[in-house]
Amino acid sequence: MASPSLFPLPGIDRIAVCGVGLIGGSIVRALRAMGRPVHITGFDTDAALLERLRAEGWIDEIAQEGGALFDSHDLVVLCQPVGCLVEFIEEHGARIGTGRAVCLDVASVKAPVAAALAHGGPAAVARFVPSHPIAGKALHGWAASEAGLFEGKRCVLTPDAGTDRTALDTAQAFWSLLGAQVATMPASAHDAVYAAISHLPQVLTYAYLHSLAARPDAREWPAYQGSGFVGFTRLGSSDAALWADIAVHNRRPLIHEIDCLSDALALMRHQLALGDAGALAESFEAARHFHAESSRPAAGSAD
Amino acid sequence: MASPSLFPLPGIDRIAVCGVGLIGGSIVRALRAMGRPVHITGFDTDAALLERLRAEGWIDEIAQEGGALFDSHDLVVLCQPVGCLVEFIEEHGARIGTGRAVCLDVASVKAPVAAALAHGGPAAVARFVPSHPIAGKALHGWAASEAGLFEGKRCVLTPDAGTDRTALDTAQAFWSLLGAQVATMPASAHDAVYAAISHLPQVLTYAYLHSLAARPDAREWPAYQGSGFVGFTRLGSSDAALWADIAVHNRRPLIHEIDCLSDALALMRHQLALGDAGALAESFEAARHFHAESSRPAAGSAD
Repeated sequence: MASPSLFPLPGIDRIAVCGVGLIGGSIVRALRAMGRPVHITGFDTDAALLERLRAEGWIDEIAQEGGALFDSHDLVVLCQPVGCLVEFIEEHGARIGTGRAVCLDVASVKAPVAAALAHGGPAAVARFVPSHPIAGKALHGWAASEAGLFEGKRCVLTPDAGTDRTALDTAQAFWSLLGAQVATMPASAHDAVYAAISHLPQVLTYAYLHSLAARPDAREWPAYQGSGFVGFTRLGSSDAALWADIAVHNRRPLIHEIDCLSDALALMRHQLALGDAGALAESFEAARHFHAESSRPAAGSAD
Repeated sequence: MASPSLFPLPGIDRIAVCGVGLIGGSIVRALRAMGRPVHITGFDTDAALLERLRAEGWIDEIAQEGGALFDSHDLVVLCQPVGCLVEFIEEHGARIGTGRAVCLDVASVKAPVAAALAHGGPAAVARFVPSHPIAGKALHGWAASEAGLFEGKRCVLTPDAGTDRTALDTAQAFWSLLGAQVATMPASAHDAVYAAISHLPQVLTYAYLHSLAARPDAREWPAYQGSGFVGFTRLGSSDAALWADIAVHNRRPLIHEIDCLSDALALMRHQLALGDAGALAESFEAARHFHAESSRPAAGSAD
């Protein structure tokens, strides 16, 4: 009989975290904050950071090779940016399938993760639970990470028909332990929803700022800004390379959302050009009404 | 010799406020909060509200007719929505010219105000100082007004070559007294700047929400939102009719801004369709760089 684990997740004593930036770093901090003995292995391209984290006691071990993690750990959490993650899964899919670890990722796009995973075969699919904690911040990296990052945040899991039930239970227990509210949906639905409510707002913010940046006199304009401008452009400080990576990996749903937005904007431009304040007010009101309805707390939380 | 005024603005003892909503109401409250004797006349389409404000001591007198205000007051502040304001000025331009009051407005668009004023002749232009306090809120009406609304906010004045120097001094002293930081610029420059930094963000927010509202399943999506969505759509609760009024009155600069934004969005859509993460990251980075530069406090405040 196995000795009962001191860590609150039964059977999860050794955890590997790949990529110790904002999300991976916050996972490490949250695990340490629980004060229970758990062995944490770190894997990252930044060797100096890993040395520091080991010296400071955040991690117990530094992994030299990603593929070996799946045999030697109970849980592997892949926190690389989505482009690196897809390459990593394509390279190590077979090892995921033959290993003993339950695997999670944290990418904002899920269909490319599922597609990469399929190359690893059914055993890899079975033990991998694609996850998306909705916990982004404008700041990135270990320095921005915090133990409470996931508290009260949503985490969307996109299990496949072939996902092992035990792996799914472990994933749900893990994210719940970190304070997240877990929901599940199909990967394709996830990518469509987040194209609409996350990726498009990010691209629109960049497009808006890009249109200002092209004008030589626009640099002085934000000095005249009201609070509306500040809120509307807050996403403008997000990391450009990280978001280009996300956007390109979700380009089909995102282009669909750009086209829907462009249609709505063209309608309003037409009403403006006609000087038709009544029709424009009706369009604005439909938008305001949706905002008011969707801002109200739902009767039951989506799940 | 005139007795020195007890009110902090020399010669300004009688003030009329036309439209006691968010802005006009906040002016009334700010004047009363100073605790100095000043006679305040209220003018509004809501007769019951005016009766209540007089009973509660906020205003001293209820005006029945707008045209008569300019002879009997030292300062008249026009706080109607821009469409009503333009009609009011067109109707009463001659009375503004022959009256003794310095006049201000608070509209978010300035060229239509200047055009309406020109019908009143040079004397009307001389004593009218078009003003735009940048102090909007999502909530409107007297109930949303507050004495400190203008504290630390910018107020842009757009005087004409024919504006009287004394009238301009009075306008600057008045807005400073309410706590605003006063800047001046030409009306056409004002309208171009605010089309870019205020009216376009409002229209884009509405267009984005409109594009979601058209989909039957989108009502459930915001339940999955992160903090980015909440900040990005905050302007969605703004009053639709009020903003249609503003947008139509500033349609030429606003359509130009919509077209600039559409060009930037089309560029990013193209880079996405190619799957060119490098080019997309460069576009995003140009936007992020502009945001970072424009978010820094300016060396000297724009004036």
